[in-house]
Amino acid sequence: LTRALVTGGRGFVGRQIVAALAAHGFEVAATTSSKPDPLITGARWFTVDLMDPAATRQVLRDWQPEILVHAAWDTTHGSFWTSEANYDWVSASLNLIRSFTAEGGRRFVGVGSCAEYDWNAGTCFEASTPLQPWHCYGDCKATVFRLSSRFAADRGISFAWARIFLVYGPHEGEARLVPSVVRGLLRGETVKVSLGTQIRDVMHVADAGEAIATLAAGDVVGPVNIGTGEQVSLADVVGLIGTLTGHSDLIAYGALPLRPDDPPVLVPHVTRLRHEVGYRPRHSLQTGLADAIAWWQQKQHDNAQIGD
Amino acid sequence: LTRALVTGGRGFVGRQIVAALAAHGFEVAATTSSKPDPLITGARWFTVDLMDPAATRQVLRDWQPEILVHAAWDTTHGSFWTSEANYDWVSASLNLIRSFTAEGGRRFVGVGSCAEYDWNAGTCFEASTPLQPWHCYGDCKATVFRLSSRFAADRGISFAWARIFLVYGPHEGEARLVPSVVRGLLRGETVKVSLGTQIRDVMHVADAGEAIATLAAGDVVGPVNIGTGEQVSLADVVGLIGTLTGHSDLIAYGALPLRPDDPPVLVPHVTRLRHEVGYRPRHSLQTGLADAIAWWQQKQHDNAQIGD
Repeated sequence: LTRALVTGGRGFVGRQIVAALAAHGFEVAATTSSKPDPLITGARWFTVDLMDPAATRQVLRDWQPEILVHAAWDTTHGSFWTSEANYDWVSASLNLIRSFTAEGGRRFVGVGSCAEYDWNAGTCFEASTPLQPWHCYGDCKATVFRLSSRFAADRGISFAWARIFLVYGPHEGEARLVPSVVRGLLRGETVKVSLGTQIRDVMHVADAGEAIATLAAGDVVGPVNIGTGEQVSLADVVGLIGTLTGHSDLIAYGALPLRPDDPPVLVPHVTRLRHEVGYRPRHSLQTGLADAIAWWQQKQHDNAQIGD
Repeated sequence: LTRALVTGGRGFVGRQIVAALAAHGFEVAATTSSKPDPLITGARWFTVDLMDPAATRQVLRDWQPEILVHAAWDTTHGSFWTSEANYDWVSASLNLIRSFTAEGGRRFVGVGSCAEYDWNAGTCFEASTPLQPWHCYGDCKATVFRLSSRFAADRGISFAWARIFLVYGPHEGEARLVPSVVRGLLRGETVKVSLGTQIRDVMHVADAGEAIATLAAGDVVGPVNIGTGEQVSLADVVGLIGTLTGHSDLIAYGALPLRPDDPPVLVPHVTRLRHEVGYRPRHSLQTGLADAIAWWQQKQHDNAQIGD
């Protein structure tokens, strides 16, 4: 069995990568800064602060992973775009790939973001769209991409970089678009949204995790956009949630302004993912949103049971 | 008096910045990882390892500089282009600007390099030449430029970035071009050089230090190339050393190959330095090289006196 390590294994995307790597037949360990999640089975857990170089090195020394998927980062909703923690993650990420390589690691896969690209581009191509981030978060992710690429090439380890676009699904932060619409409608409340004219590629997080695990299991190198290849407007997404919950009437389109820093079109070119990595998503937008709605329904039910 | 701090104050360039800031009327302190240099007067010294965030913070807390010139970096001849220490300097530099800002600092001036530019460009313009470094060193310098620019803009501090090209003069590493030619000729040895067809902008290090101090004392922001604006071939430089030492006959042109990673033309556009910062160098190539030769002569004399 090949040993893999996933950083940020409790995270929204990280937990899906852990599950998908286990399904791929890897011997998986995951790091968390808090404590193991009993819901995620099939992985060994390491509780470690990745800001601590010595402690991080010890985890790599103990587990000796051949493959490392680095999904940990600060993603606190509302603050992560501009947070100073982004700079700490640059240092922590550089330390991580150096320690991984020093301990004999073979392949490093980083989790990047559409925020690395110049959002004026509309459709983002790995090979040609400039890395001209609009926010600190994207700048720091692009920095780790650049310097880790360089480091890996110099040291002869295999390196790939998964750029995630818009993902949704179980365990998503409640303040984000899909959960806030789903939860509001399930409660029978009016939900205020913008006109929703923004064109996006929205992917179920389990598919994103599986795409990254497939990338990690193979030998494709360099940046790879992670997306479905389907372009939808956010109004389509919100409308479909309305249909699936039977509460279309509760959606107030245009009640919120469009954000000035929200680009009209932000979608990936997915040729590399489809034809080089060979991955296609399992969920359509309809089945994916239905799954997310079912998960939030179950969560509301569980919380009601325990009096929350 | 305005308080300034120079990191790497014992370094080849750093020591000139210290002297020039003192001449500008600043109250200057300098950091070194080793020990104060008794030859550099007019500055208070802090011995500190900039890789240690707490110790670095304490220096800033004690000195409370308004202006910080960050000249420290690993520049070990032969290894610094590819050294892993470059990554450590990324983390240390980000830590430095954050601590400086947290302690109330007002203006941060970083020392960058022509190595940040795409060397296919020939003539490098601050505003338009792509930052596409050929080596790890340039990648890491460009990273600190990008992320520090972002940080400074977000936090409202003034930020400038001095990109040095080819500098020479007192205290230069002995293995570098000018010292190795000067020292060989002064000893009466045959000196092997390449054909020297490379076109460069070579600047006396005291002028580079003064240019950076002038930049730091003013309010110009963003990247500023540091150079003379004169283009010369390295054969011209070597030839002039031959003339000035009276040993032109000892120079073996073409005895060494041109390095494949050495670009044929690498010079700065210096409009910003001349017209925005308002700095022009004091030395011509002739007076600058004469000064360097005199310094190496004195050094050989001093070493002979103490039996070295």
